[in-house]
Amino acid sequence: MYKALVYVTLKPSILDPQGTAVKKGLESLGFSDVMDVRVGKYLEVSLEAEDKQDAREQVEEMCKKLLSNPVIEDYRFELMEG
Amino acid sequence: MYKALVYVTLKPSILDPQGTAVKKGLESLGFSDVMDVRVGKYLEVSLEAEDKQDAREQVEEMCKKLLSNPVIEDYRFELMEG
Repeated sequence: MYKALVYVTLKPSILDPQGTAVKKGLESLGFSDVMDVRVGKYLEVSLEAEDKQDAREQVEEMCKKLLSNPVIEDYRFELMEG
Repeated sequence: MYKALVYVTLKPSILDPQGTAVKKGLESLGFSDVMDVRVGKYLEVSLEAEDKQDAREQVEEMCKKLLSNPVIEDYRFELMEG
């Protein structure tokens, strides 16, 4: 059993209205030192795989096909065993 | 300037319908070895602070007040300098 920690973020050139909204929310709460906020997704995917290489290939495929939109998003992931 | 990488996840006891939907989506794409999917948020917060301790306290406050819902969510973060 493997667990993949997947981080999906908007590409740097893509505008992030959700991040802007969070930044404004923080400012209105008095956090005046916030320069920038970017919002992404974090997923934990537990899966069975033959070995770590197999798990990595499966998660890579998942990221490309469903978990991220490669046109506007980047992804990276870490794999943990057990 | 500091950058906080913030991870917000549902508490383990809270049902995650979004994770269930992603799991079904993966299964329908042929990923039959997926056991579980949990969906969370990932935020990158850039902020000015006097030192690392000050930055840590600010981000801790942000997480409690706005970035997470402490009733149903857990959070953790890493701080990077520069």
